[in-house]
Amino acid sequence: MEASKIVLVGAGNVATHLGRALRQAGHDIIQVYSRTEESARTLAGQLETGFTVQMDEVRTDAELYVVAVKDDALAEVLPRLVRCSPTALYVHTAGSISIDVWKGLTSRYGVLYPLQTFSRRRPVDFAEIPCFVEARTAADTEYLLRLAGGLSQCVYEATSAQRLYLHVAAVFACNFTNHLYAVCQQLLEEHGLPFEVMLPLIDETARKVHQLPPAEAQTGPARRGDTTVMEHHLQLLHDRPELAAVYDILSKSIYSMTHHD
Amino acid sequence: MEASKIVLVGAGNVATHLGRALRQAGHDIIQVYSRTEESARTLAGQLETGFTVQMDEVRTDAELYVVAVKDDALAEVLPRLVRCSPTALYVHTAGSISIDVWKGLTSRYGVLYPLQTFSRRRPVDFAEIPCFVEARTAADTEYLLRLAGGLSQCVYEATSAQRLYLHVAAVFACNFTNHLYAVCQQLLEEHGLPFEVMLPLIDETARKVHQLPPAEAQTGPARRGDTTVMEHHLQLLHDRPELAAVYDILSKSIYSMTHHD
Repeated sequence: MEASKIVLVGAGNVATHLGRALRQAGHDIIQVYSRTEESARTLAGQLETGFTVQMDEVRTDAELYVVAVKDDALAEVLPRLVRCSPTALYVHTAGSISIDVWKGLTSRYGVLYPLQTFSRRRPVDFAEIPCFVEARTAADTEYLLRLAGGLSQCVYEATSAQRLYLHVAAVFACNFTNHLYAVCQQLLEEHGLPFEVMLPLIDETARKVHQLPPAEAQTGPARRGDTTVMEHHLQLLHDRPELAAVYDILSKSIYSMTHHD
Repeated sequence: MEASKIVLVGAGNVATHLGRALRQAGHDIIQVYSRTEESARTLAGQLETGFTVQMDEVRTDAELYVVAVKDDALAEVLPRLVRCSPTALYVHTAGSISIDVWKGLTSRYGVLYPLQTFSRRRPVDFAEIPCFVEARTAADTEYLLRLAGGLSQCVYEATSAQRLYLHVAAVFACNFTNHLYAVCQQLLEEHGLPFEVMLPLIDETARKVHQLPPAEAQTGPARRGDTTVMEHHLQLLHDRPELAAVYDILSKSIYSMTHHD
């Protein structure tokens, strides 16, 4: 696609990764805006562009304004930002904020949501980050699909309602999963075993669901309804009541899903 | 190491995968025993060896007897099996059975436990399966470490007590994790999104803990103590009380682990 002239509003994690990816895809980041001068300067430096900390100095000649600020700053930023240009396309990048946040402010608007798990200490390959787009008009949806397609291999259209469930689903599959890894590490280390022994199984468990639906891939005592093993495990956890509670409720959830099918 | 003459007792999943790996490592599987003729014949055919369904026809000239039968069949099988040879080494392969199950039956015994998640529809690379060994004597431990080292890249010594916790830890990191993937799939499909959209994040979540301890890698609303988002998520799950309960208990567990550190 043709390069777009873009203003980046925000200079945090999302703005940084998105800004780099947009630039790498050949777009022209003409300016970075942030309330915090240091962040604005740092990101503008990385993107070799200008910056401002004054909303009334934001350039008015961009074709696209990408807003990546904290959710609770959106209400204040958006009404001031849309004065820049009545014809440009405006998008925000927040998973749990409806597209309707733009309603009545301007005519061309949408959402570009990268579903990501950032860790400061890990580099990000943007090509692998699923991106979800939504826009008021079909033409702008089309444009955002093409734009995002230049950044990531995994681009989807999603409504605001779908994005909400996407976020909850990600909490289950990523945040909660990571916590189970942490519980595993605690249990192993308390018994003199390094966490590394579990990595091959963790990897295989993740790989398997590329091929099999997770409900079919389910194994273990709860799936088999093996109450002897489950009771034994609960006994082993008797000094960790909070882990026993997690064990119990997840086992029941597995059992009920298996029987429901 | 030198090839060992091995009798395989059992012809199920574990016996099959272990038998193939032992043969590939150059060992001599001289016989397969199983109570079920069809299983015995099938596995013996794959390993190009003989089989029997009669315990009193089990060959007495093996150096190693590997027992991979169901946990509840061990008590019946072991006392009869040890009559084969008073000098051979005997091992079972059950994660949750103590080495003491052999006590008083014979003098050289131990455990060879492959920590695996078998799915019928997926091939297994034995080299990636962590194996845990234990034996009564140091010499036999040494032998089992070498034997297992020929099958897998991940070989460890573990006591019977450690194996119990290994099994519980694996339930958390693998069985429960897979269930969270299944929950994720349900939520996504109920809202018109394919499970595939979550695979990059699932992969990244698993990859991340190769580099960072999981407690450090933790992200999400529970980690941040963001009660607004958590309450919103619980509202989205109001028609799925069992999932809301899982959400609630895991969020509390994350919060308490974070604050404990």
